[in-house]
Amino acid sequence: MDTSEKQLFVKMVMDAWNSSLKRTDALINSLTDESLGKQVSAGRNSGTYLLGHLAAIHDRMISLLRLGEPLRPEFFEWYVATPEKKNNHEISVSELKNYWMEVNAKLNAYFIQMPPEDWFQKHNSISATDFEKEPHRNRLNVMISRTNHMEYHRGQLAFLKNE
Amino acid sequence: MDTSEKQLFVKMVMDAWNSSLKRTDALINSLTDESLGKQVSAGRNSGTYLLGHLAAIHDRMISLLRLGEPLRPEFFEWYVATPEKKNNHEISVSELKNYWMEVNAKLNAYFIQMPPEDWFQKHNSISATDFEKEPHRNRLNVMISRTNHMEYHRGQLAFLKNE
Repeated sequence: MDTSEKQLFVKMVMDAWNSSLKRTDALINSLTDESLGKQVSAGRNSGTYLLGHLAAIHDRMISLLRLGEPLRPEFFEWYVATPEKKNNHEISVSELKNYWMEVNAKLNAYFIQMPPEDWFQKHNSISATDFEKEPHRNRLNVMISRTNHMEYHRGQLAFLKNE
Repeated sequence: MDTSEKQLFVKMVMDAWNSSLKRTDALINSLTDESLGKQVSAGRNSGTYLLGHLAAIHDRMISLLRLGEPLRPEFFEWYVATPEKKNNHEISVSELKNYWMEVNAKLNAYFIQMPPEDWFQKHNSISATDFEKEPHRNRLNVMISRTNHMEYHRGQLAFLKNE
């Protein structure tokens, strides 16, 4: 594969990721802790739960992309595997915000030093045999789907802003 | 650029688009006209407005991707340029649903016959001179950003479902 073409494609995908992350950060930082604690819509998840959820999904990307170990794997149990109503863990907004920033900084530190070719290697949830047949299931594909996931919840978090 | 590599990129992006479209369709089809007419959250856009908005944005993609002319350009004025509160156009839910299906079918008819190379040509909102310097601003990049846009609003439309 031609490196300059790979670079082009990586740029397309990473620009979308960075743009979504920048907008999500700006939204979160524009909200008070009190606003973030409210349900995004009546009877739905709170902003703090969604923040924990996004951070835990991003943290899980570290191992999914085969870059290292998640920083706080227990958050996946609390904010992804467990719905908010059954989540008994009282994490402060400031701790959630710090976790969110740390996870994204950690990912970015990996991303900025990754050569374009490496993005087209397999992610951690597919076997080497299956990857031979399905080369689209690579690390960069994880970025596409996680950007979509972030946008899905950013659309919901946006309801916490005053009109 | 190597055609098989281009095919791989196109598959990654189009799989994400098709997956989002399938989920959005399933959500819209699971809602009654009455549910779709409700605000997705108190004081926010209705489901019907968001349906018109998504359909109009997708219709605009036909010209943005240089594939032809939008089917109903007036919907862009009503559902994108005009906020719901100022939109005086009473379009029935069935007409909106038909428009949504027609636009996506039209796009798909173009997509299935597009050679991989063509996805890396410029879209309609960039000059040939700028495109030489910024080759990432191609048709495929439009698909990445419009998939994100669809996911953003799908996250909001999901609130119309009963828990």
